[in-house]
Amino acid sequence: MSAAGTAPYGADGAGAGVSVVALLRAALGDRVDTSLAARGAARADKSGHAASGMPLAVVNAQTVDEVRETMRIASATRTPVVARGAGTGLAGAANTGDGEISLSLRGMNRILEVRPDDLLAVVEPGILNADLNAALAEHGVWWAPDPASRAISTVGGNIATGAGGLLCAKYGVVRDAVLGVDLVLADGRLLHLGHRTVKGVTGLDLTSLVIGSEGTLGIVVGATLKLRRLVPGTVCTIAATFPDVRTAAVASAAVTACGVQPAIMELMDAASLAAVHALLGLAAPTPGAAQLTVQTDGPAAQAEADAIAAVLSASGGVVAVSHDPEEGERLLAIRRAMHPAMETLGTTLIEDVSVPRSALPAMFDEIARVEREHGVVIPTVAHAGDGNLHPNFVFDAEPDADGVVAVPAYVWNAADDLFHAALRLGGTLTGEHGVGVLKRRWLADELGDDQFELQRQIKAAFDPLGILNPGKVFGP
Amino acid sequence: MSAAGTAPYGADGAGAGVSVVALLRAALGDRVDTSLAARGAARADKSGHAASGMPLAVVNAQTVDEVRETMRIASATRTPVVARGAGTGLAGAANTGDGEISLSLRGMNRILEVRPDDLLAVVEPGILNADLNAALAEHGVWWAPDPASRAISTVGGNIATGAGGLLCAKYGVVRDAVLGVDLVLADGRLLHLGHRTVKGVTGLDLTSLVIGSEGTLGIVVGATLKLRRLVPGTVCTIAATFPDVRTAAVASAAVTACGVQPAIMELMDAASLAAVHALLGLAAPTPGAAQLTVQTDGPAAQAEADAIAAVLSASGGVVAVSHDPEEGERLLAIRRAMHPAMETLGTTLIEDVSVPRSALPAMFDEIARVEREHGVVIPTVAHAGDGNLHPNFVFDAEPDADGVVAVPAYVWNAADDLFHAALRLGGTLTGEHGVGVLKRRWLADELGDDQFELQRQIKAAFDPLGILNPGKVFGP
Repeated sequence: MSAAGTAPYGADGAGAGVSVVALLRAALGDRVDTSLAARGAARADKSGHAASGMPLAVVNAQTVDEVRETMRIASATRTPVVARGAGTGLAGAANTGDGEISLSLRGMNRILEVRPDDLLAVVEPGILNADLNAALAEHGVWWAPDPASRAISTVGGNIATGAGGLLCAKYGVVRDAVLGVDLVLADGRLLHLGHRTVKGVTGLDLTSLVIGSEGTLGIVVGATLKLRRLVPGTVCTIAATFPDVRTAAVASAAVTACGVQPAIMELMDAASLAAVHALLGLAAPTPGAAQLTVQTDGPAAQAEADAIAAVLSASGGVVAVSHDPEEGERLLAIRRAMHPAMETLGTTLIEDVSVPRSALPAMFDEIARVEREHGVVIPTVAHAGDGNLHPNFVFDAEPDADGVVAVPAYVWNAADDLFHAALRLGGTLTGEHGVGVLKRRWLADELGDDQFELQRQIKAAFDPLGILNPGKVFGP
Repeated sequence: MSAAGTAPYGADGAGAGVSVVALLRAALGDRVDTSLAARGAARADKSGHAASGMPLAVVNAQTVDEVRETMRIASATRTPVVARGAGTGLAGAANTGDGEISLSLRGMNRILEVRPDDLLAVVEPGILNADLNAALAEHGVWWAPDPASRAISTVGGNIATGAGGLLCAKYGVVRDAVLGVDLVLADGRLLHLGHRTVKGVTGLDLTSLVIGSEGTLGIVVGATLKLRRLVPGTVCTIAATFPDVRTAAVASAAVTACGVQPAIMELMDAASLAAVHALLGLAAPTPGAAQLTVQTDGPAAQAEADAIAAVLSASGGVVAVSHDPEEGERLLAIRRAMHPAMETLGTTLIEDVSVPRSALPAMFDEIARVEREHGVVIPTVAHAGDGNLHPNFVFDAEPDADGVVAVPAYVWNAADDLFHAALRLGGTLTGEHGVGVLKRRWLADELGDDQFELQRQIKAAFDPLGILNPGKVFGP
């Protein structure tokens, strides 16, 4: 869906690229980085996949005006622009390739306002989630979204992907935690979307439309965030071991059904556990065993932990409850080591299906079937409290001459089978990572052709020239 | 923005209207009501305002297919369609006038599925909020949105307006409580938007876009609702009386800032209190006195009530705490009698501005200024916990020959002054009632011209012929 063919400057050759870079340099000076290192780094995110070819330049914007100027030049020259935060995405949405500008918001990382009395903060998009929360803690408040990447991912990236995390069943996702966004349109105009108020229904909810739009509608240059008070009381942690992953999944569904709301409920299957234990130098776990790690918080944390422990024991788990925060952190660290542990096994395609919580056991049955029928290995962890699974397809692959690692066809076939199983169970292709390039083949399968086409029309209303992250989500 | 001029059937005369009705009757039989009583009732909602002229017919749809057939006929004949639930709106969005079809969803009122284990329910749009919650209570769950009209308003209407209510600061608004909607487009196609899962970021969030769109994007024919467990423990109620409304507003802001989250915090000014006491036959309140009614719930309700009572006392209130649920209901009944009490004073324009909670005292100062400068009386209640105010402009007016009550120019001038004051304080025109016809004059003031135009383009992507509730929100 590249609009290069209609470019008045003719963006289809090196000469055109040079002229775009010259315009950017004239307007933005040393914010424009054309070094091979910077351009090369902008080709990839944490998915392990990279765009073909090299971006024209990386623009390191420091101000809203610099973003607007970049977009005005991009519109005038019909040059595609890919917004970028910390590059921790897992679907390739920020990968920037041939003839494109990588627009980095990472340098716009100020907290502009914190209002504990109104439970809101106004921030620039490039601030890291963890840095924001460290600053907010001094005011007795926090921003709830907690993707596993929170130490290294930006608030703007969290918004662009509609990120989730571990705490979502109790504390919500990004969509629940953003009151408004400031958005630079493709042509450089600046819109202020949303409200500073708890309630607000003036016109269409474009703030929610931008959340999770992966850079296809505009550039998020600011956000008004909805905060929560820090949760008082202790945190209790429960570790429960089960003979197999299906029993663990049934137990997690029983916890959800029992009416006590954990803050965190993470499930690891046997292959995941074994890989993490090996990475961390821990004793090998019991073969075949799966684990649930559950945390409760707030004033009733201990009573809730006891109630959940009883459900887990009755569901066949070997259960240990800890009231020691350090022990809790140690147990969760095992879950957090999943991503590096997978990297030790080979190349990984990290998937992200989500199903209704009662369907979690059935989804693990489907994963086992896909492993059997396709001859693949799929270590899987799940945010069991909200039904979001991360099956990791592990395979051997070498980068091609262009440095791009291609997912083999047999892996995509297995993933295709798994995606359709999730849809049959009332689930979705992606709970929190987004569509990017990796899942665009399946988007219409989930949305249906009519909704897919309507979404494309809405994208075109924001971006009539098709220069905002073309080829991602809806393309090619 | 009527599209009548381009109608192939020529919708600009009585003959055209007859042909549309004939088509509807041929397809839908006795679902089509052309009685004067039904058509007359469809002209108005609870705002006290009515459309000019008479609708062609009321279609009482019982099934999704009947809605689709209605929209196909409407598209073929370019006939405007206005969706309608129970007609309890307060902005005129469901008012249906000359040459238009009123499409009633009130008869589609079934609960299709309740899943306590997945904390979701699937319902048709015409079910009353209170009826739904009575049925859900048997499963130990509830749907949190609680507009003051909940006993008489439909879930579909709650979604169309993006309704709020009394519990929003603690339990969220409609947008936080809907996972997906089924939407019939202007041309009769049916879309399934959203998810059955806690997390889901597949493409653009069209579910949120439909919430609060007031019938301008499509007809909501089904909804997947996000439920909560019933809250355990007791409810405590605090009544606090203050010498004046500003002191009460400062006290409510102090409660929000203290970090204890009430379930409900309602503020009534002196004029509101006096009117309700007169209506209910209670002893007249102290002249000038304002009242806060606060409820806490959940396991820590009593401790929270004590903490809030201390803040209110320190803020100058005369405070009484009750742990008796009946006493609590009696105190809240005073607040709930506001609407009928206003009707005893004259004709009322009920407004709905919302401001950041810390700005509540300043907003009451502005209301007092507007009363002084414009010579109007504005009894005001506020959902003080979330900063949403309902100033009631009371005036004398007679219906014209067409039965329409016109708001006098001097009242609109005062309202205009009040709206701009709310915007200056970082607020919004409408917290929960919507734009409808009554606030469309001010929509672009809040959104800005660029966003206003973008929203119109998005509407056009859903409704290219402009037959879905034309003239509302974005028009004329």
